[in-house]
Amino acid sequence: MIIVIQCKDQVGLVAAISGVLAEQKINIISMREHVDKVENRFFMRVEIESHNNATALEAMLQKVLPPDAFIKADPTPEKKIVILVTKEYHCLGDILLRNHFQTLGAAVQCVIGNHDTLENICNRFGIAFHCISHEAKDKHAFEEELRNTINNYSFDYIVLAKFMRILSPDFVEHFPTQIINIHHSFLPAFIGANPYRKAFERGVKLIGATAHFVTNDLDEGPIIAQQIIPVNHSFTANGMMKAGKDIETAVLAKALQLVFDDRVFVYKNKTVVFE
Amino acid sequence: MIIVIQCKDQVGLVAAISGVLAEQKINIISMREHVDKVENRFFMRVEIESHNNATALEAMLQKVLPPDAFIKADPTPEKKIVILVTKEYHCLGDILLRNHFQTLGAAVQCVIGNHDTLENICNRFGIAFHCISHEAKDKHAFEEELRNTINNYSFDYIVLAKFMRILSPDFVEHFPTQIINIHHSFLPAFIGANPYRKAFERGVKLIGATAHFVTNDLDEGPIIAQQIIPVNHSFTANGMMKAGKDIETAVLAKALQLVFDDRVFVYKNKTVVFE
Amino acid sequence: MIIVIQCKDQVGLVAAISGVLAEQKINIISMREHVDKVENRFFMRVEIESHNNATALEAMLQKVLPPDAFIKADPTPEKKIVILVTKEYHCLGDILLRNHFQTLGAAVQCVIGNHDTLENICNRFGIAFHCISHEAKDKHAFEEELRNTINNYSFDYIVLAKFMRILSPDFVEHFPTQIINIHHSFLPAFIGANPYRKAFERGVKLIGATAHFVTNDLDEGPIIAQQIIPVNHSFTANGMMKAGKDIETAVLAKALQLVFDDRVFVYKNKTVVFE
Amino acid sequence: MIIVIQCKDQVGLVAAISGVLAEQKINIISMREHVDKVENRFFMRVEIESHNNATALEAMLQKVLPPDAFIKADPTPEKKIVILVTKEYHCLGDILLRNHFQTLGAAVQCVIGNHDTLENICNRFGIAFHCISHEAKDKHAFEEELRNTINNYSFDYIVLAKFMRILSPDFVEHFPTQIINIHHSFLPAFIGANPYRKAFERGVKLIGATAHFVTNDLDEGPIIAQQIIPVNHSFTANGMMKAGKDIETAVLAKALQLVFDDRVFVYKNKTVVFE
Repeated sequence: MIIVIQCKDQVGLVAAISGVLAEQKINIISMREHVDKVENRFFMRVEIESHNNATALEAMLQKVLPPDAFIKADPTPEKKIVILVTKEYHCLGDILLRNHFQTLGAAVQCVIGNHDTLENICNRFGIAFHCISHEAKDKHAFEEELRNTINNYSFDYIVLAKFMRILSPDFVEHFPTQIINIHHSFLPAFIGANPYRKAFERGVKLIGATAHFVTNDLDEGPIIAQQIIPVNHSFTANGMMKAGKDIETAVLAKALQLVFDDRVFVYKNKTVVFE
Repeated sequence: MIIVIQCKDQVGLVAAISGVLAEQKINIISMREHVDKVENRFFMRVEIESHNNATALEAMLQKVLPPDAFIKADPTPEKKIVILVTKEYHCLGDILLRNHFQTLGAAVQCVIGNHDTLENICNRFGIAFHCISHEAKDKHAFEEELRNTINNYSFDYIVLAKFMRILSPDFVEHFPTQIINIHHSFLPAFIGANPYRKAFERGVKLIGATAHFVTNDLDEGPIIAQQIIPVNHSFTANGMMKAGKDIETAVLAKALQLVFDDRVFVYKNKTVVFE
Repeated sequence: MIIVIQCKDQVGLVAAISGVLAEQKINIISMREHVDKVENRFFMRVEIESHNNATALEAMLQKVLPPDAFIKADPTPEKKIVILVTKEYHCLGDILLRNHFQTLGAAVQCVIGNHDTLENICNRFGIAFHCISHEAKDKHAFEEELRNTINNYSFDYIVLAKFMRILSPDFVEHFPTQIINIHHSFLPAFIGANPYRKAFERGVKLIGATAHFVTNDLDEGPIIAQQIIPVNHSFTANGMMKAGKDIETAVLAKALQLVFDDRVFVYKNKTVVFE
Repeated sequence: MIIVIQCKDQVGLVAAISGVLAEQKINIISMREHVDKVENRFFMRVEIESHNNATALEAMLQKVLPPDAFIKADPTPEKKIVILVTKEYHCLGDILLRNHFQTLGAAVQCVIGNHDTLENICNRFGIAFHCISHEAKDKHAFEEELRNTINNYSFDYIVLAKFMRILSPDFVEHFPTQIINIHHSFLPAFIGANPYRKAFERGVKLIGATAHFVTNDLDEGPIIAQQIIPVNHSFTANGMMKAGKDIETAVLAKALQLVFDDRVFVYKNKTVVFE
């Protein structure tokens, strides 16, 4: 079982928490703790051997922690996700494979595309696909359709697996710290559209990808994971885009694994990631 | 011996060049060639076993190449450099060590600092150090002093080894494609001052360094080499700066080695690097 | 069109080859050349804009090259492959996805498993699956069945995508430089069985994967690509195995792309890879 | 102040330790904990804001921990080291630079070489150099001389910075978990002599370096840090050796920093490293 705790920092928190666990004769498998000194914020992830009553444990912990502490003891770790896509298959394909072989750490509820390009691959894996075109309607109407379809499902996270429409602040607001995006550059370099074209023109020697939570500020949300690969003069902009797809897939896969394992904490515009 | 060639692309260049070498019974050890299709530009680096007359060889190659071709057959590959520093020792120290043990591929002529912090380490290696303060004078006067001192030496490149003053376009113009800088971020992320502070605030998961030629546009010159290291929530801004120093040292060392081995070509705002 | 050439080294080879191309007014897009000085062996890969008669071009090149030169001008670059698997899905899944979306650079002809675990995923992609069990028969009989099934297909390469049976020298001999394997360690570390268990016991700080051609010497064939990821004390042997799967998938994908793009040359027990 | 603890695992250790700290109103800056389930062993590193009496704190902790627990509360974190070298300068040079600018986290007491090649660089940094030749004497006599010289100094660690003599079990026994070596391959690949030659002959695509504690089994001691760099067919054995030097320097520097920061625990033949 995993316990995650986030609250204002104060002296004695570790003693208080581990005291509760010791009292219950709970064996700690691993414990990670971080204090953000700038924000005076305490983060902890504890992996324990097991406990038969998560709610009771949460209540016991609540008693020794500050009143506004966030505490979650999670006996059912599998998350549920909804995926949004456009036309590119690489991130979706990887997620569907892991989902199919039950190594994703989450269960894909459905896939929504603003094009129908990826309907076929979803069908092959027996995953529901909804095509919601953005064409011939305004953004507001498009996003309302999206929301209605999404809300037909029970889910923990919305994964933008190369979804190429910019979501409005209004939409994002409905799902705070629930939308995860893969951006095709090592942010904050090349914010916005066409990062590979910009990377090519700037002549950089490495390109990358960034998985982050989506907030109202485009490409400015809390970063979960980033990775890069070397490129050189022999890469065209298209070659960079092609090479970048593998790193996008890898970074999104890694970020999802971290999130689904309850290893990622968000506070303001940053993450704490206990790898 | 190394031969480097840069010119407008046209059909038959490789045949013409290798024909001249074959006629002279010159054995090619390695040959790297690149055509920039966007710019219609041809770049070649040939390593040959030896030849007793570089000037004659250049003339023979000139005959079969476009009139404006840049050709250099270099029998004396050791370069000469002047180094500019401020207070940080890590890049300078690494260069002085390599210079001392003759593995730098260049000979350090002198070090110029706008502070005297690094005079002692230069003395220990027997390298001339000139302190030219930027204080109590305007930028123009400061740069004129710099230029006068630099020009007392014979040199191929000026290396900014953590030189923390911004050079004016006027200064840079005097040394086109001769000034090499190490910037403490993976450009174009965090252009300008305090990149580690900005990286900390943005919550990135990797920091980096970029070695580039200096042009009139600050931090926008042709990139030679870039590298990154992973960071996480446990790094303070100072911790990032400390961790970054090692990668700065490594990237500058690599870029210098590439340049001194005649592996780097510049055209417009990009480099071709034959690693 | 791609032209690949391998032969004994001698003075003037580049001139001879590029002379033929220039005579035909063929534009060279890129040219990579390597001379193995120890073996006195010449390797070249040329990408040209196009030519309407590959056979004629090969004949012209043959005239200016040593009689035993290997020359291939390939107007139909898509390769055909047969895949052998056991139970693990990750490498196969990645290949099937790329095959399905036509980004593999090869066409999967069939999949053969010594278990039927992966039949379902092949069916979902419409790829023929043959189950050939190794049980209740001797190695010779098993491999004859394999060979008979394989030889029903036209193919360029056999890919061992986590095929967990050791193939006999007799089998391997039938397919020289045609069998590509992914080994779950950075060879030559941890040769043989259970590399993750061995890595765990040794306490290494990095684990890796190696894609190589299969020869008679187990795990000793020419290496195509290798990659590593960091691990630490918190990894169990199983955790290493799980983390290793992603790197196995990535390394095999990269090796296949290099091979299918005709970038890999084999001579004796080594490869020349023009990335 | 740093506190490190190592002991047999049991329920309630974290609570007991953090209870003592909370009682003393000590603020925990960061805490890292690991339980080796196979060995049933508990490791902890705590960074606290400060405490005026380390010995008293150790005693308080001792009371709540198993009797054989190893506990160290260290108010004077700077370590002292003795360095052994042969002829290669790169690792020594890097250490001397960091030592000189007080960023090493340790103080170099002296350098001992079995050749006098590196005497000059030590002199330049004002560090005592002792030349103890291995020639014209047996191993026992050589090592006795070494030991006598080493023991003239007060030190925490002996660093083998490319010391090319194999130390006898007898010598090693005198300094358990005190000798740190840099080996020029990613162990356990290419154990023993000439790893670059072996790597070249095997045709690997990556080479590496390993920093480890020295035990009686040659190249088999607990690994502290490892890193690799990519190589390819264009590298000669000498080219690999040259490229390898930079990674050797980097890995040793990283390992030393980890050890000097009390982040490395040794148990049996493995390390726990809290990066």
